[in-house]
Amino acid sequence: MTGKQSQRQDQYNRGKQLFIDTAKHLFKTQGYDKTKVSDIVNASGRNVSTLYHYFPAGKKDIVKILLITDIKEEFDKLAALMAQESDRSLIDALHLFYHQFVAIFYHNWYLMSIMLYYKDDFEAEVTPITREGTDHMRKLLAAFLKKRVDNRELYITDCNVAAKLFFAPGMEAIIVNFSEPEKDVFDTTEIDQLIAIWQRETIFFDQSK
Amino acid sequence: MTGKQSQRQDQYNRGKQLFIDTAKHLFKTQGYDKTKVSDIVNASGRNVSTLYHYFPAGKKDIVKILLITDIKEEFDKLAALMAQESDRSLIDALHLFYHQFVAIFYHNWYLMSIMLYYKDDFEAEVTPITREGTDHMRKLLAAFLKKRVDNRELYITDCNVAAKLFFAPGMEAIIVNFSEPEKDVFDTTEIDQLIAIWQRETIFFDQSK
Repeated sequence: MTGKQSQRQDQYNRGKQLFIDTAKHLFKTQGYDKTKVSDIVNASGRNVSTLYHYFPAGKKDIVKILLITDIKEEFDKLAALMAQESDRSLIDALHLFYHQFVAIFYHNWYLMSIMLYYKDDFEAEVTPITREGTDHMRKLLAAFLKKRVDNRELYITDCNVAAKLFFAPGMEAIIVNFSEPEKDVFDTTEIDQLIAIWQRETIFFDQSK
Repeated sequence: MTGKQSQRQDQYNRGKQLFIDTAKHLFKTQGYDKTKVSDIVNASGRNVSTLYHYFPAGKKDIVKILLITDIKEEFDKLAALMAQESDRSLIDALHLFYHQFVAIFYHNWYLMSIMLYYKDDFEAEVTPITREGTDHMRKLLAAFLKKRVDNRELYITDCNVAAKLFFAPGMEAIIVNFSEPEKDVFDTTEIDQLIAIWQRETIFFDQSK
């Protein structure tokens, strides 16, 4: 790329990002359905043809980009966290995974609610991102649990099922939180009970030896 | 009530029900946001002032009535089921409760998604219905579990937490199902693992005796 080309590319990216940031702010504050393309255009101080140049399908295209940048990146960060060895205690590590997993959905609820409500518009292209992200997290958690089972720190018959069970209360808390008055979505009471019963058998195993 | 009064009351109720049934059909088929009051009026063959006579707040009032008739009644049925003694096995009873609980949300998803998306419109009056319904189910399940713990059929330290954990996979499955291609929301793999670990300690208890 020549200097001029790269300057043009920067300008192009900045213009695109301005629309994305503006749309994100409007989706969050006034809702997706009440945000018109003209609102995004006006709040950005650009013109409508520029917006459609960047986003041929308008609002929908912006949501898709937000999903990739804001959600996929968070999933990748958590994946890295779960894959790496650490000197955290078992409980601390599980709490951290749970917290980060819930946080992804919590901080991007405005996007999730759009996907839930406008399922038909996003099913084909967008839900694979959240689906694969969630499945990948579960697989990594299952692998993490399996190691602890092998170490006899936990007693779990099927780590894949256990991983699904582990994230379910968080997912439920998120949904409930956003349909009702604020509650503590990061509360770990349920997963603490789960971890305790996963640990329990080991004790009896050891006692029966 | 005189015969004439009761006839008038019947007519009033029938007129009201016609609007409710029509709106329900339209909400389900074309979505809440795309259904205008005029669509409900036209599809019912009545006039707009009649609709506002029954439902001063329009669509919102109809959603509120649907929540009471379609969801609250289902919660009451499940409550009756959970409270009654039966000769079902423990596993069969738990499967039945789980199935019925999930079914309530599954069959009324169109209402749930409206509540999730238009939180501000429904929070004050409507969410207490689903919240109290869900909490009540959990309390009844906790009481059911407690009995089985007392009978040493299950080993659970906190039955209230256990009851929350038990319904979480179902709630998550519902949400995932409606944001993605159809999946089996009634799948019991996760709760089966949970039940198995609730039962496990008892075995070791007995063995260690």
